[in-house]
Amino acid sequence: MKLEALPTPCAVVDRARLEKNCARMQAIAARHGVRLRPHLKTSKSIDVANLAMGAERCATVSTLEEAAYFAERGILDLTYAVGITEDKLERVLEIERASGARIGVLTDDAATARAIARSGDVRAKRAIGGRASPAREARIWIEIDSGQHRGGVGAESDALLEIARALEPIGVAGVLTHAGHSYAARGAGEIARIAEEERSAAVRAAERIRAAGIACPEVSVGSTPTALHAKSLEGVTELRPGVYVFGDLFQAAIGACANDDIAFSVVASVIGAREDCAWIDAGALALTQDRSMDGLGGAYGEVTALDRSSLRGAPRVDRLNQVHGRVVATSQERLELAVGTKVRVTPNHACLTAAMFDRYYVEEDGEIVAEWPRLRG
Amino acid sequence: MKLEALPTPCAVVDRARLEKNCARMQAIAARHGVRLRPHLKTSKSIDVANLAMGAERCATVSTLEEAAYFAERGILDLTYAVGITEDKLERVLEIERASGARIGVLTDDAATARAIARSGDVRAKRAIGGRASPAREARIWIEIDSGQHRGGVGAESDALLEIARALEPIGVAGVLTHAGHSYAARGAGEIARIAEEERSAAVRAAERIRAAGIACPEVSVGSTPTALHAKSLEGVTELRPGVYVFGDLFQAAIGACANDDIAFSVVASVIGAREDCAWIDAGALALTQDRSMDGLGGAYGEVTALDRSSLRGAPRVDRLNQVHGRVVATSQERLELAVGTKVRVTPNHACLTAAMFDRYYVEEDGEIVAEWPRLRG
Repeated sequence: MKLEALPTPCAVVDRARLEKNCARMQAIAARHGVRLRPHLKTSKSIDVANLAMGAERCATVSTLEEAAYFAERGILDLTYAVGITEDKLERVLEIERASGARIGVLTDDAATARAIARSGDVRAKRAIGGRASPAREARIWIEIDSGQHRGGVGAESDALLEIARALEPIGVAGVLTHAGHSYAARGAGEIARIAEEERSAAVRAAERIRAAGIACPEVSVGSTPTALHAKSLEGVTELRPGVYVFGDLFQAAIGACANDDIAFSVVASVIGAREDCAWIDAGALALTQDRSMDGLGGAYGEVTALDRSSLRGAPRVDRLNQVHGRVVATSQERLELAVGTKVRVTPNHACLTAAMFDRYYVEEDGEIVAEWPRLRG
Repeated sequence: MKLEALPTPCAVVDRARLEKNCARMQAIAARHGVRLRPHLKTSKSIDVANLAMGAERCATVSTLEEAAYFAERGILDLTYAVGITEDKLERVLEIERASGARIGVLTDDAATARAIARSGDVRAKRAIGGRASPAREARIWIEIDSGQHRGGVGAESDALLEIARALEPIGVAGVLTHAGHSYAARGAGEIARIAEEERSAAVRAAERIRAAGIACPEVSVGSTPTALHAKSLEGVTELRPGVYVFGDLFQAAIGACANDDIAFSVVASVIGAREDCAWIDAGALALTQDRSMDGLGGAYGEVTALDRSSLRGAPRVDRLNQVHGRVVATSQERLELAVGTKVRVTPNHACLTAAMFDRYYVEEDGEIVAEWPRLRG
């Protein structure tokens, strides 16, 4: 099938670019001698996951629906990298029992750590038929704040050791951090500086736990920008980047991919042609209202021809209703977009935009060669 | 099941409020003597649709997936109220053939109108076994711009009559407009003024078509604010409001519902407690980054206890990552939100937020009494 024949709006993945992005990150992990545990929240697709993972089939997820989806499809070493609550542990256990997967969970909260330690005993007992074996069940990670100030305890905090001690009876899998503040960086130099903050915070936290006599085997870091630009990963054991598989306008703007690396886009139809703008059938429910490009001279997405050639007026999407997107020129030229024309929209943020669709159409040299289903939840 | 036991994040609908909102709009349509053709893009749920529609089972949809979903479930009189493109007509036909539904489509483009007139013949022939009966197939609406400047031709434009003449061989179902600019209005008086603009533009367009000797039986208008505040619907035959079934913070802010009318909310868990904020498990993929409250002193949603009582600090959601939402106090009080606490988030824009979920949990007096599936596409 040609791209022109796709039902619109739909999500398209360029296979050659995707494979190149996956190979690049695998090479980076190999060069640093660390495990690659790609974050699958970007694609929520087993087909993309199979390209992203290396020989070691392990991955990171952002919801328990993702955990169940990937576990059922044979990815048995998963980390659910969003702070756990006690009542979600039962669902984690269910997924593990149904699939045989091992799902790491994380906490930055002492009260929750104590609750996990209690239920961790339960998990161990269930797993091995009633005999607890806490040391072999260490799958609880401690989340470290390396500067993003979202989740995590500070590497120098008292809370770090309080949590480690609470978990000691069932073991600490390791420490984990995400330098999400790398998204505010601009250019390789600044990103490299944040990568070093990320690495040193995580390594320092692990060292403090070990100095307290508690085992802390793993040190997990990762965001796409920091994974690409880190100079050293000394002391780190694994990397968890996510959006690199697809790339997007935002990653290109901060220097974390080239425009030609962007493997994900949306195909839309022009449904309205007015004097000063056009309207497409990709609105907020296709593109999302991600505003990451606000400070970077962008809007909601860039519009090109299906073959990626430029269109007159260098159009972009500047306004979104539920199912309508407004396209305006960014140059002095007039738009030439007739009703029925199919266009390609490159979005700001691939993770969010991809999540609006239930499948990817896989593109190779302008032909659609496969359809890959994806999870919505 | 109690609300406390819901998996988070999830979407909750208050049945009593929903029923009240539906009854109110049915009464408004009855008072004006017009057909109610509710827009189902808000709920994408047959259960909500069945409450929203009156005895006349007709509705409006925003995607062809919605058209197929509702047609399969017995709503056989539908309007697909987004500008059609020629290549989508085949899918419209497929849905009609599979379900027996009749799907109105709309255009504001003369070239597309000519294409529709050609394929309209095809539709008529297929529908009645090879003999064309164009006059009985009039299901093509002309979209009128009543001030939103998104889709539609002006009521006084030459294009209006050009399109009407192009469609004449297969008949014009009517004219249709949506005063989306009512969303920029503040208060009942201003909304009433826009409602009159909406009405008069649509009626005037119909009169011009009729004066040209072309039948134009229907005049369709509607948005939630204008439907609620219109003083007269003289000359109008149907109303197409949508979001009134649920209501949201934005509709309350502009005076199109009361806070106590809001029937839709999201239940989330607190997953992180920091000095100056808390984090919940409802991020951009649960709440959406709708910014309609930007100019109205809002953020991404208001946070209350599950029973809707106020929480210390009058918290709201002010930042969203993919699966994390940040909650901050809006008063001088400190937040008291421990990890694991369940909260209720009232969102800015119910249509977009509801679209992030695959089901509604239906609430009655704090108990979950039903689960209603919903369409994602």
